[in-house]
Amino acid sequence: MLLERIHHVAYAVEDIDAALPELIERYGMRVGIRERMEEQGVEAVALDVGPDRLELIQPIDPEGSVARFLERRGPGLHHVGYAVGDLDAALEELRSAGAELIDERPRRGLGGHMIAFVHPHSAGGVLTELVQSERSGRHGDRT
Amino acid sequence: MLLERIHHVAYAVEDIDAALPELIERYGMRVGIRERMEEQGVEAVALDVGPDRLELIQPIDPEGSVARFLERRGPGLHHVGYAVGDLDAALEELRSAGAELIDERPRRGLGGHMIAFVHPHSAGGVLTELVQSERSGRHGDRT
Repeated sequence: MLLERIHHVAYAVEDIDAALPELIERYGMRVGIRERMEEQGVEAVALDVGPDRLELIQPIDPEGSVARFLERRGPGLHHVGYAVGDLDAALEELRSAGAELIDERPRRGLGGHMIAFVHPHSAGGVLTELVQSERSGRHGDRT
Repeated sequence: MLLERIHHVAYAVEDIDAALPELIERYGMRVGIRERMEEQGVEAVALDVGPDRLELIQPIDPEGSVARFLERRGPGLHHVGYAVGDLDAALEELRSAGAELIDERPRRGLGGHMIAFVHPHSAGGVLTELVQSERSGRHGDRT
């Protein structure tokens, strides 16, 4: 499998609205799509950092994994998303190699991208999201 | 201040050589510069992910901040580096706004980039590295 590029970094926060002003006013980020994702137990917002993306995720399910992350470790870096050319093939390749997948099949992520999470045990110690790349040119998938 | 883009993500690991094979063979990353940075108490290696960069950092100073991070939290996401057009001006702007800086002045980072760290308290809860951008075009600073 080939990771094409970093798609986004995600910060877990207690409250998106409390976190946004600093990132917008002090660091010049621009607010993009915002969505409640019931299935994942989070509300998420995308912030543009030039051509790149930061996602803020806030738990809406107190029993969900992001709520537990915040309880255990406090606000901070939650995961990194990487673009792949063929998400189905990437998952099959990882499965065959004995990697621990969190999502056995692609599912819908923020903004409608198809995504799947890989367990930190099988990805350098870091919770890793694979994002189906939708184009050949850089960042064309955000338009 | 304007963050131009994500410059790199950094993973803290116990042992770079143990972590590398999975990232290279399973995820197709390519090894770039590798350096012992005595002042920061780490050895670091840059991995290219397409046009982007992942850094692995391993403590060489058992009293250093990365060693303490690993003791406290185990291997995982350590910080995010963002490119800025004028690092001196960015630090001055943050200082004036009352932000908590870890480095009051730019210092040398991996590969000779001038960098400075901002405390998580003043950067969305995440340890944040500002990297002096050396060019106007994307990624020209890596050649």
